[in-house]
Amino acid sequence: MDLLGVLAYGELTAFERLASDAQLAPTVADKVALGSMANAEFGHFKQLHDHLVARDVDPFEAMAPFVEPLDAFHDSTQPSDWYEGLIKAYVGDGMATDFYREVSTYVKDDETRSLIQSVLKDTGQAEFAVARVKEIIAEEPSVGGRLALWARRLVGEALIQAQQVAVERDALLELLVGSGDLAGITRLLKSITDKHTDRMALLGLQA
Amino acid sequence: MDLLGVLAYGELTAFERLASDAQLAPTVADKVALGSMANAEFGHFKQLHDHLVARDVDPFEAMAPFVEPLDAFHDSTQPSDWYEGLIKAYVGDGMATDFYREVSTYVKDDETRSLIQSVLKDTGQAEFAVARVKEIIAEEPSVGGRLALWARRLVGEALIQAQQVAVERDALLELLVGSGDLAGITRLLKSITDKHTDRMALLGLQA
Repeated sequence: MDLLGVLAYGELTAFERLASDAQLAPTVADKVALGSMANAEFGHFKQLHDHLVARDVDPFEAMAPFVEPLDAFHDSTQPSDWYEGLIKAYVGDGMATDFYREVSTYVKDDETRSLIQSVLKDTGQAEFAVARVKEIIAEEPSVGGRLALWARRLVGEALIQAQQVAVERDALLELLVGSGDLAGITRLLKSITDKHTDRMALLGLQA
Repeated sequence: MDLLGVLAYGELTAFERLASDAQLAPTVADKVALGSMANAEFGHFKQLHDHLVARDVDPFEAMAPFVEPLDAFHDSTQPSDWYEGLIKAYVGDGMATDFYREVSTYVKDDETRSLIQSVLKDTGQAEFAVARVKEIIAEEPSVGGRLALWARRLVGEALIQAQQVAVERDALLELLVGSGDLAGITRLLKSITDKHTDRMALLGLQA
């Protein structure tokens, strides 16, 4: 339930932030693209919310422990322009998806596992962000360095908040290490970092 | 098409602003309530967008003339707290709905008219806002005065932008006066103002 709680609040805040970053969009078409993604995130939130309700779990109680760390992450990573917003959508969503996908393999309940995997489906965010960011880097190569630094900051802030959550929520930590030993966490972190490096390489940037 | 364009961009910005005002929500439940409304607005936008595409109209061209006045309205009326956000959702959406509903009666094409009337269906915004605002006024009566002033400012800003649009878009103006004479506009304005007064009375506030 902890996992569904953090995932639900993650989708809810992703929705809120994407929709609000849509205000930075340079064209109405870009606004609509970001709005569609935000909307898809809200749909995912709704599915998780309803799944919890159907199992007699109060979704607000399930989300409560994660409100502070997720809000702190978003507050400390407010994009200052459209491109920072795109990188955040791409890097943040990518890392979160990798994390949840790995963790979901340890979930024993079939219905819950397949729900998690279905809400992690790509909303088209990655492709859209990659195309737009590559365009701007081609036009103004100096932007690349700034965005690479920004991505590094996003990863740092995400790890700080994730550690906080892992320390405070025994159930989540146990789900992660329950399958084996602490080496499992090291592998999980390595796999997430490797995928982050691949993701940055797609933009032509160093992680 | 002008009417569909302004309506579509209106729904798109309403989505964006509601979702972003959800960040001001005091509880996660309030955040979800505002998020659901924002989501419904995006659904309406999508319907209008698809209707335009199906009729070989570029939705971005149809929206273009209204981007500036609608953005100007939102920029000049950024809520500074959760309650101002609620009043904006209630008063702004209420006035816009009244306006479009009146105008839609002049639309000759049946399909377009019924689409407009369906996207104007209440998203639960009014009831939610009224309940929350009444609570806070009961607790802190001084808030009432501030919110009444805020509502008056919203109406003022909306009228300024609406006038701008009417002056610049002959087609919309003609739709409005086409049915009869200029007295039609006076009646329209009176009807919108009367409904606004009723809306404020529901909150126990003076318009």
